[in-house]
Amino acid sequence: MERDFFLYNTLSRKREKFETITPGMAGIYVCGPTVYGDAHLGHARPAITYDILVRLLRHLGYKVRYVRNITDVGHLENDADEGEDKIAKKARLEQLEPMEIVQHYTIRYHEAMKLLNTLPPNIEPRASGHIPEQISLVSKILESGFAYISNGSVYFDVETYNKKHPYGILSGRTLENVISNSRELDGSDDKKSPFDFALWKKATPEHIMRWDSPWSNGFPGWHLECSAMSAKYLGESFDIHGGGMDLLFPHHECELAQNTAARGDGGVRYWMHNNMITINGQKMGKSLGNFITLEELFTGSHQILEKAYSPMAIRFFIMQAHYRSTLDFSNEALTAAEKGYKKMVQAAKDVASLNASQGALSAEIADIKRGVYDALCDDLNTSVALAHLFEAVRVVNLAKDNQLKLTTEDKETLQFLFSEIMEGVLGIVDEQSGSGSSVILNEVVGMILEMRKEAKAEKNFAKSDAIRQRLTEIGITIKDTKEGTEWSL
Amino acid sequence: MERDFFLYNTLSRKREKFETITPGMAGIYVCGPTVYGDAHLGHARPAITYDILVRLLRHLGYKVRYVRNITDVGHLENDADEGEDKIAKKARLEQLEPMEIVQHYTIRYHEAMKLLNTLPPNIEPRASGHIPEQISLVSKILESGFAYISNGSVYFDVETYNKKHPYGILSGRTLENVISNSRELDGSDDKKSPFDFALWKKATPEHIMRWDSPWSNGFPGWHLECSAMSAKYLGESFDIHGGGMDLLFPHHECELAQNTAARGDGGVRYWMHNNMITINGQKMGKSLGNFITLEELFTGSHQILEKAYSPMAIRFFIMQAHYRSTLDFSNEALTAAEKGYKKMVQAAKDVASLNASQGALSAEIADIKRGVYDALCDDLNTSVALAHLFEAVRVVNLAKDNQLKLTTEDKETLQFLFSEIMEGVLGIVDEQSGSGSSVILNEVVGMILEMRKEAKAEKNFAKSDAIRQRLTEIGITIKDTKEGTEWSL
Repeated sequence: MERDFFLYNTLSRKREKFETITPGMAGIYVCGPTVYGDAHLGHARPAITYDILVRLLRHLGYKVRYVRNITDVGHLENDADEGEDKIAKKARLEQLEPMEIVQHYTIRYHEAMKLLNTLPPNIEPRASGHIPEQISLVSKILESGFAYISNGSVYFDVETYNKKHPYGILSGRTLENVISNSRELDGSDDKKSPFDFALWKKATPEHIMRWDSPWSNGFPGWHLECSAMSAKYLGESFDIHGGGMDLLFPHHECELAQNTAARGDGGVRYWMHNNMITINGQKMGKSLGNFITLEELFTGSHQILEKAYSPMAIRFFIMQAHYRSTLDFSNEALTAAEKGYKKMVQAAKDVASLNASQGALSAEIADIKRGVYDALCDDLNTSVALAHLFEAVRVVNLAKDNQLKLTTEDKETLQFLFSEIMEGVLGIVDEQSGSGSSVILNEVVGMILEMRKEAKAEKNFAKSDAIRQRLTEIGITIKDTKEGTEWSL
Repeated sequence: MERDFFLYNTLSRKREKFETITPGMAGIYVCGPTVYGDAHLGHARPAITYDILVRLLRHLGYKVRYVRNITDVGHLENDADEGEDKIAKKARLEQLEPMEIVQHYTIRYHEAMKLLNTLPPNIEPRASGHIPEQISLVSKILESGFAYISNGSVYFDVETYNKKHPYGILSGRTLENVISNSRELDGSDDKKSPFDFALWKKATPEHIMRWDSPWSNGFPGWHLECSAMSAKYLGESFDIHGGGMDLLFPHHECELAQNTAARGDGGVRYWMHNNMITINGQKMGKSLGNFITLEELFTGSHQILEKAYSPMAIRFFIMQAHYRSTLDFSNEALTAAEKGYKKMVQAAKDVASLNASQGALSAEIADIKRGVYDALCDDLNTSVALAHLFEAVRVVNLAKDNQLKLTTEDKETLQFLFSEIMEGVLGIVDEQSGSGSSVILNEVVGMILEMRKEAKAEKNFAKSDAIRQRLTEIGITIKDTKEGTEWSL
């Protein structure tokens, strides 16, 4: 690659130079949603973070295979080894087949992800679709001696594993930490130790989603699917494994242990974790009444929200923080992001009509471009990259007001930054345009603004005011500037 | 149910009264696409036919579970038991993982189906996601003695089966027909008879998609997935199995035989088959140069097409024939359908503003409503139902011109027909409206037309002509009528 890319590796706790297993190719696995409810603000952050990662690596020249799973079985309540399957519970409550729940929420998830302008993964495997692969992985772990069968279920033997491989290496725990934070076993438990985790669970009679296995008719443990599917589609060793910080322990720690138990090593070169979103300083949670779905955000229909926020405002908001920092949601922050977003896409639209005189790239524009790349290649620092892009916005606005002269190369570079970086890598698009009817709307409104200009030229101010008034009623705001009249919805 | 619904059953070759296994609930399984290429005109017909079936049954009060599969493994070239897997071949040609091909074309298929305004199925199972279920079905058929193992593959034993159950009962063939139409076995074949079909195939070394089984590392036969998945999600006996006529033999015949071999009966109450689409009288085929994808239809980018046809024009075109008749595509027929579609949605828009005087339902409108229901409940006769709806269009246009007086109940019934039947059951929606910007476009264009009217009133014909001219350039056609000015894109 022409440029070096640096990534913070949760495993080494260091910022490392990114080097892929196969030069020029990058394999990325990201933990996707458990599809038993609508996508919320907490889903938007990893979706956008890894979308930008994939877009950036492609922009840098990598051929990327991006795998993100759909968890449709095995994820039990409270992320624990006991309790009801999250999807089966929803199915029971709504009197539907579990796969009807899966289909319903998968479609809604895809729609929300599309609105956020995230690219679909190249492969989107489902846990329930990889039962043979998961059974075979359990067998391997049993063969290596790091698991035991108990009453038809199979558990990972953490203590035995820890004698050979450090359990907790990814999340920075020691076995002692883990032990002291585990609840006591109750009598009904099949596990030897409370911190052991299920690889395969024997199904209780009322359990709906179940398959035959050498150990029992049952279902796979939640952590198992990602170990099985990442190896199937990216190979037993691959480049990047991403997910939210909330998945670091136990989910990713268990994945790493499973991989190591079955194959001798963790299999992942770079573990990447995005931080969490808080709401007005609080953790988001259903019990706290601050649980906001993406649909509620897009429509403004949650009591916490002062107004609706568009998908692009949310995308912009998320990018304004570095992915490893926490990000606090508030109406003020969202409104500021929306304003910034609009300012930036307006500048991106304005570049094309700027005057430029023949000439080479100026130092100022060269600096902006360098700053943008340096930030993105420094562990995906979108926050700093945006700050540099706002420098570009400032230049465009100065040039528009004839306070700054651009060379042809300056103009080309600005256009490149807006089309290839802002739109291509950061995925920021103009929500007002794109569809055919919006292009036509633009032309029709332009036609009306032309008529208003004529009315003004004829000193028919009653008419020009009436036009402005009528447009306002329709929902179109116009603003007269030195350069002409701008409009927005 | 309030109304009786009659359905032609391919198995009995009779139009039968529809009675579901569980009163009030209808289980429907439809064969979905093999996702190795873009959806074409041939995919649109079953998608729309079964969409209308599902919508109608829901309208009549049934709770419908609609299952449509995605074939992502096992479908070999030429629909035969030899040759390369269709998806693996595409993957090899494009140097991708087969599941990347699956993901790419599944997304595109969903997009095309959404444009055609077909509802997503309630469950969309994938063949590759149901390997254990398929292996278990093969075991059952082996246990019943209707299959044999040969060199790691498992084949269905058609002759043995035919001694107990009539093979060919669904497609109207006898074993003698089948035998005389089968090619000779060549030496390399593992089958006992050329008309036996694969339940499980041992994978050759270069085969990519493969799983362990009791017989070999291999992959399921194409027909197997539908028997396994329909039983899993609808039960071993269910109400309707639909698909294109091209799937009747061998695919559905083999499904019925598999079901019978494993469980004693075919499992399906009503087998339903839509007829084929021809292109200017010819069969559609890649080698004939008349293979038109839906995207090409929507954009007009195929040499056969004189222009682009919108998804609704295509939907309307397909509904203009009964699903069991062949349907010939031609530019003339599509253009006529588009005209009819526009006329109908215009009438649907016009009803709201019609005058009506207090009063009961007139005989004429009652007849139209009865006609529409009778047609739809008579084996889904959309063609006749549309003819009755055009009667409603005529009434609306007469009332608009004050040549006919409507009662309030007439008006309500007309509104019901357009919203509940045309839009709700037939799925015909106004493509110009719906999105926010289209509503605004409508208002903005209305504003321009108002200005043109003023110009005309002031006898400023130069200006009114200039407005029309500019609109034409933008792509908006206007038409002056007695009632005012209509516009369209």
